[in-house]
Amino acid sequence: MARELKILLVNGPNLNLLGSREPEIYGTATLEDLIAAASQAAVAAGFTLDAFQSNSASELVNKIHDARSKYSAIMINPGAFTHYAWSISDALTAFDGPVVEVHISNPQSRESWRHTSVVAPVAIGTIAGFGQQSYVLGVQAIVHYLEHN
Amino acid sequence: MARELKILLVNGPNLNLLGSREPEIYGTATLEDLIAAASQAAVAAGFTLDAFQSNSASELVNKIHDARSKYSAIMINPGAFTHYAWSISDALTAFDGPVVEVHISNPQSRESWRHTSVVAPVAIGTIAGFGQQSYVLGVQAIVHYLEHN
Amino acid sequence: MARELKILLVNGPNLNLLGSREPEIYGTATLEDLIAAASQAAVAAGFTLDAFQSNSASELVNKIHDARSKYSAIMINPGAFTHYAWSISDALTAFDGPVVEVHISNPQSRESWRHTSVVAPVAIGTIAGFGQQSYVLGVQAIVHYLEHN
Amino acid sequence: MARELKILLVNGPNLNLLGSREPEIYGTATLEDLIAAASQAAVAAGFTLDAFQSNSASELVNKIHDARSKYSAIMINPGAFTHYAWSISDALTAFDGPVVEVHISNPQSRESWRHTSVVAPVAIGTIAGFGQQSYVLGVQAIVHYLEHN
Amino acid sequence: MARELKILLVNGPNLNLLGSREPEIYGTATLEDLIAAASQAAVAAGFTLDAFQSNSASELVNKIHDARSKYSAIMINPGAFTHYAWSISDALTAFDGPVVEVHISNPQSRESWRHTSVVAPVAIGTIAGFGQQSYVLGVQAIVHYLEHN
Amino acid sequence: MARELKILLVNGPNLNLLGSREPEIYGTATLEDLIAAASQAAVAAGFTLDAFQSNSASELVNKIHDARSKYSAIMINPGAFTHYAWSISDALTAFDGPVVEVHISNPQSRESWRHTSVVAPVAIGTIAGFGQQSYVLGVQAIVHYLEHN
Amino acid sequence: MARELKILLVNGPNLNLLGSREPEIYGTATLEDLIAAASQAAVAAGFTLDAFQSNSASELVNKIHDARSKYSAIMINPGAFTHYAWSISDALTAFDGPVVEVHISNPQSRESWRHTSVVAPVAIGTIAGFGQQSYVLGVQAIVHYLEHN
Amino acid sequence: MARELKILLVNGPNLNLLGSREPEIYGTATLEDLIAAASQAAVAAGFTLDAFQSNSASELVNKIHDARSKYSAIMINPGAFTHYAWSISDALTAFDGPVVEVHISNPQSRESWRHTSVVAPVAIGTIAGFGQQSYVLGVQAIVHYLEHN
Amino acid sequence: MARELKILLVNGPNLNLLGSREPEIYGTATLEDLIAAASQAAVAAGFTLDAFQSNSASELVNKIHDARSKYSAIMINPGAFTHYAWSISDALTAFDGPVVEVHISNPQSRESWRHTSVVAPVAIGTIAGFGQQSYVLGVQAIVHYLEHN
Amino acid sequence: MARELKILLVNGPNLNLLGSREPEIYGTATLEDLIAAASQAAVAAGFTLDAFQSNSASELVNKIHDARSKYSAIMINPGAFTHYAWSISDALTAFDGPVVEVHISNPQSRESWRHTSVVAPVAIGTIAGFGQQSYVLGVQAIVHYLEHN
Amino acid sequence: MARELKILLVNGPNLNLLGSREPEIYGTATLEDLIAAASQAAVAAGFTLDAFQSNSASELVNKIHDARSKYSAIMINPGAFTHYAWSISDALTAFDGPVVEVHISNPQSRESWRHTSVVAPVAIGTIAGFGQQSYVLGVQAIVHYLEHN
Amino acid sequence: MARELKILLVNGPNLNLLGSREPEIYGTATLEDLIAAASQAAVAAGFTLDAFQSNSASELVNKIHDARSKYSAIMINPGAFTHYAWSISDALTAFDGPVVEVHISNPQSRESWRHTSVVAPVAIGTIAGFGQQSYVLGVQAIVHYLEHN
Repeated sequence: MARELKILLVNGPNLNLLGSREPEIYGTATLEDLIAAASQAAVAAGFTLDAFQSNSASELVNKIHDARSKYSAIMINPGAFTHYAWSISDALTAFDGPVVEVHISNPQSRESWRHTSVVAPVAIGTIAGFGQQSYVLGVQAIVHYLEHN
Repeated sequence: MARELKILLVNGPNLNLLGSREPEIYGTATLEDLIAAASQAAVAAGFTLDAFQSNSASELVNKIHDARSKYSAIMINPGAFTHYAWSISDALTAFDGPVVEVHISNPQSRESWRHTSVVAPVAIGTIAGFGQQSYVLGVQAIVHYLEHN
Repeated sequence: MARELKILLVNGPNLNLLGSREPEIYGTATLEDLIAAASQAAVAAGFTLDAFQSNSASELVNKIHDARSKYSAIMINPGAFTHYAWSISDALTAFDGPVVEVHISNPQSRESWRHTSVVAPVAIGTIAGFGQQSYVLGVQAIVHYLEHN
Repeated sequence: MARELKILLVNGPNLNLLGSREPEIYGTATLEDLIAAASQAAVAAGFTLDAFQSNSASELVNKIHDARSKYSAIMINPGAFTHYAWSISDALTAFDGPVVEVHISNPQSRESWRHTSVVAPVAIGTIAGFGQQSYVLGVQAIVHYLEHN
Repeated sequence: MARELKILLVNGPNLNLLGSREPEIYGTATLEDLIAAASQAAVAAGFTLDAFQSNSASELVNKIHDARSKYSAIMINPGAFTHYAWSISDALTAFDGPVVEVHISNPQSRESWRHTSVVAPVAIGTIAGFGQQSYVLGVQAIVHYLEHN
Repeated sequence: MARELKILLVNGPNLNLLGSREPEIYGTATLEDLIAAASQAAVAAGFTLDAFQSNSASELVNKIHDARSKYSAIMINPGAFTHYAWSISDALTAFDGPVVEVHISNPQSRESWRHTSVVAPVAIGTIAGFGQQSYVLGVQAIVHYLEHN
Repeated sequence: MARELKILLVNGPNLNLLGSREPEIYGTATLEDLIAAASQAAVAAGFTLDAFQSNSASELVNKIHDARSKYSAIMINPGAFTHYAWSISDALTAFDGPVVEVHISNPQSRESWRHTSVVAPVAIGTIAGFGQQSYVLGVQAIVHYLEHN
Repeated sequence: MARELKILLVNGPNLNLLGSREPEIYGTATLEDLIAAASQAAVAAGFTLDAFQSNSASELVNKIHDARSKYSAIMINPGAFTHYAWSISDALTAFDGPVVEVHISNPQSRESWRHTSVVAPVAIGTIAGFGQQSYVLGVQAIVHYLEHN
Repeated sequence: MARELKILLVNGPNLNLLGSREPEIYGTATLEDLIAAASQAAVAAGFTLDAFQSNSASELVNKIHDARSKYSAIMINPGAFTHYAWSISDALTAFDGPVVEVHISNPQSRESWRHTSVVAPVAIGTIAGFGQQSYVLGVQAIVHYLEHN
Repeated sequence: MARELKILLVNGPNLNLLGSREPEIYGTATLEDLIAAASQAAVAAGFTLDAFQSNSASELVNKIHDARSKYSAIMINPGAFTHYAWSISDALTAFDGPVVEVHISNPQSRESWRHTSVVAPVAIGTIAGFGQQSYVLGVQAIVHYLEHN
Repeated sequence: MARELKILLVNGPNLNLLGSREPEIYGTATLEDLIAAASQAAVAAGFTLDAFQSNSASELVNKIHDARSKYSAIMINPGAFTHYAWSISDALTAFDGPVVEVHISNPQSRESWRHTSVVAPVAIGTIAGFGQQSYVLGVQAIVHYLEHN
Repeated sequence: MARELKILLVNGPNLNLLGSREPEIYGTATLEDLIAAASQAAVAAGFTLDAFQSNSASELVNKIHDARSKYSAIMINPGAFTHYAWSISDALTAFDGPVVEVHISNPQSRESWRHTSVVAPVAIGTIAGFGQQSYVLGVQAIVHYLEHN
């Protein structure tokens, strides 16, 4: 099925500033760099990857709703929404494919309010701390999951 | 006053997916079914009911602001916003009519983060757990309240 | 079955004082008024309603035990027992029909010790805040539930 | 640099209702009154002040992103977002100028959920409780800060 | 009014065992001794005192209900009910006269679960730790209160 | 002394429903079965066993009071009272013989509110989780204790 | 022993303002009124009473140190120190006579930070809520205690 | 009234060391510098300002008591007393004019024990984080308040 | 199957010191005494019992691993490991037979850190407080369980 | 340097049972399968991988000590030690290369005691939830990290 | 520098009662004994030691302020101030030499409110539990520190 | 008795790495240096000192067991075990001589999980923060204790 070959990459608030915001934490790669790296990993496995970024929780929810039956998997970096946006968590629950949570830095090494994830319970797995490589590993995890489930 | 005869039904995030999302919790009725049932109950009592759904907290806030002096009451199912969207709670405080909170399932029987409601303190009452019928009962509660206050 | 047509209304401690105790919170309706309103709603739907009030948790537990196979549903306003009487919660678990929890005022708008309900997890739904009308809506919720389950 | 002479005033959800919502807490001044007072204070110091209000967290985030390198400072009254909108906190962290937090009333004298500020840690200072004058003092604090740093 | 001259002394669970239970905490005086002392203090002030003891919360609630308009004041030692029997707290709220809480020992010097009192918020005052004399002082406090209010 | 040969078995609220209530947790044995098994174990050791069940905390307290100097030991399954009925805990403290706490299921494997026991601190020991056999083991524990102390 | 006939009344911070500060909570009696009432009660029992007030914790500690072997008892209203001044608690521990804690209002009916007393654990008893009469009752409690211990 | 023209500036413990203690947090301005700046702001508005510093809570309480009917307003930097000195909070409650709380640094950005203020609830407003300018803004806030209330 | 007739008794850290360590809590019986008593109870029921003690969590884990398919049941007194050694809890989960937890004293009557058991949730039942007899009762509980399941 | 080409894979308690223990959570792959998959990924990148498993925290600590200057990176699945073995956390801090934490299942979707990781703060990143593939992704993350740092 | 040879010993509230207050906890040595022992240890190392005791936090703060540039080190037993007197903690932060905290008894073995120290974070080290010898060891620790830093 | 002259120094996990691990916290002295310093202090007082280090809690427990009646005192630096190894705490309780707890750095100045000590309640005293000198002071404390008890 055509759907099987598409991954949706969802990026949450402030990630559009990557490269210029707190580079000591988030590194110097821009969001475009991360998308390119993720896309390249997807293409290498025979998938295509569409990327979406928004600072709006409702736009993310709408996008996740739209992804139903269009995409085989969602890879999401919810940014600050990770920690309180239950509406996104509920939307991901309704998605009919695997969800993988990725983070550039390791939330557990930062402020305590970053230790809770409302997305983790609805994801098959989480990858955090590896910078741009978190996105590449996330794509590889999805590909492997889809090929074996 | 013409305003006395109109009820605004506000539905929060992900409720547009009703019927397809976790039917073991939320049942198989769609949002349209619920609106129809609520509307029918309103009409039976000589009221009209307008329905609004959004995945966006700000759109809900804006709609609640617009409802001032236009609607005699608001019935709201805040969905996941129930538990953290203080902006909606503040907006409802500013509404000049009764507010009734409704839920399809019983939040107190589910995950602990669903036990807190930031809407309850600004509502005259809450109805939870009766599926589609929560909406019908909510309309009846509003009608009775308006007729006796 | 004859049993299908009977509802038991259970009222907990201090509700016998309704009308004279803190009318700014509980209103001026007496318990008799509430029972009459609930009964009228039941009769209108072809049901009969028996009412029971006690200040004793054990009498409430015994009554709930006795209701097994005699009543099709229980509507309960547990009063102060809402918040700590686990023995009533256990008794309701053993009842073989739907349980609906009703409250005259909205416990979530009052002292924090009134925010916990040990009855909610064993009820199909909760109706709170509508004064006497909570009882009428509760009966209607039960009737609707029994007709559709 | 031209940029040095501009202040962005950001107002969060429900502040558009100022003057009509809970005047016993927020006073009778409208948002326009507050903006005018703040603007007058800015102009008196040789600055201009642009004001922005939204009920949407994402619009606030976008506005704060846009303010980078355009404004010398941000004065923000986050309203209900003060207490949970980490996405705004993250956006302010990325702003390249001083941030001052202002409140019309004193959150510490109100409900306990209003005691936490996710904005305070990224602001150079906070002014709360002085009604419209909080905005005037906030502008003066910014002006003084910019002149001495 | 005849009612003005009568005090009801209410004793909660296990107080019937006074004198034989943990005398190192509760002393060797029996409940009869305490009632006699309290009664003597009441009579000395021109009052009569009726005493009631029960191990049953509902009997205490019923007795408090019956006391309405019959007694001018209630002095209560709620025993273990002090710490969780909200039904008694609610009943006392409905009493139309002053309530004084007395304890033989000092709950704050004992196990931590004895530090909370659900009765204190509805009492005009509390006397704890003076053994039998707590009862005498309680009567004197009531007499003084009734004479000056 | 004749007293040495008698054990009082006290069963708390809802245990009269054993066999019909939640058999997946409590098993299919009735209370009569449990009493018979316990009695048989007692008789086998030369003791007699009297059983008492009540849904009323005050009846349990009264029974425990009456047991003083009549029974050599009390075996108690406090049911839901385990977790909040401090009046029973106080009554057991006043009993002049060993107390053993028994439970059919293991409270620590169930809801968190079942993890606290207000009886455990006044019991010489606790046996939980073995169904009907908990009662047999409890009797054997009492017999052994009385023979060696 | 001469010492047996003297009581020290210790009043903590802000009590010198009694009568003018928050009369809806503390009443209109001045500290002089309270001291006079307490002194009269002491004299009536053959005791003398010396009163001391200070806004300084160290002066209170010093006074309590000086009271050793000079006074037969201390009656203390620690005011705001009740809730955190462990140095006073330690000083009272070192006093060689009974300590009684008195309060004009009932701390348990007020803000939650007033619910903890660091003095209660070192006092034989506490009297709270009876206004000026708390002092009279406190003296009577001390007199009775000294006569019977 | 002459009183209307005087402001009392109260500085708490260790503020006498300003300029030499932790300059990276508190800056290099001395207390004299801050008083001069505040005084200049007061004089500019037609007020005089008296300053008082003490490391003693009781001296601060006494000074606040003395300020009653002498000063039109109090501006206080309670230093470490901010977080636990309830006696000062009570004294400020008894003051018959507006109270403004000022801080040189932002307590909410420092150790967690600095996040609680026992003064904030009795102040009309709080200004924190602007160094010496906090004092100037505080005076301006008072002046504006007195002119408009 | 031969396996059906063997029970493994596992004793955790410091239990090798039984008889010499805190005899007022643990009694004077040595570990050898307890093993002998347990073994005798096992033999009486046609079982054999092997005993193992270690102060090392890993040795206990290894022993539990080895017990798989060799023993029909495990009786474990985890000692101080009861409260934090999740590795033992995980190992017991993997065991293919019933687990019974025993304690010589009653952890719930001791320091609060002894109130949590990480073993209880994976055990069919718990016996605590009966000294050496806890072991005998534990064997009897296992025997009964194996004969009836 | 030869050291650059070696990865140490450390597996904590009970992981030797993989494949037979709770396969619904951990899957059916054995530890050997996981090691083989990880090793293959390492070899593919020009690295060798040594694997070590122990149920003993001290053996894991010793092995981590020994790895200093011998291995270029450590990949660790701490099993149940994740949540409390601070000694391992301290040992990893002393290791002179990157540490990656891997988990087969997602601890955040399981019991709450599994939500804390004492290893995460000392790891560069965490990969959880992907079964055997977590190990492959972990190796790839290490390889990428070593090549780019 | 002469300053290098002087140590200031600061003793907090109630320590002037040493020897007569709770000797089972604090021993029979008087404060003079402790000062003599500490002084002797200082002299033996070529230092002099001045001792200061006060029940007043502000006097302690003032003394610590005065010690700046006069004493090479401070040894402090803050007594009850250990647990809440943040003003002393702040004062010690401003001292320009090492601070050592000493306690006669071990606060961690006593009431839970004695487990927190607001002084420990600003001290180079803490010595607790050795009675008079804590003071001697504290002096030796200071001497060693000054000689090696 | 020969035993009187021997001290056992027990060092917990990771202390074998001293000098190379986090020297900014633990200093550059190696464990050998610390043992030498401690030993020298012991010898100077006529004692011998044996040192033992292990990363294994069970080896530490076993060593502590073996020390009974062989050593007159134990000085222990439990390292990371300080905070959770209740098995070591229990073992120390069974030791028949004084225990002194020493730490190189001050746990109360570091991460919050390092603030709890399960060893402190069973030690006569604690010395923390003085680096190598903590060990020397610990030996001196033991010597002094043994000479005076």
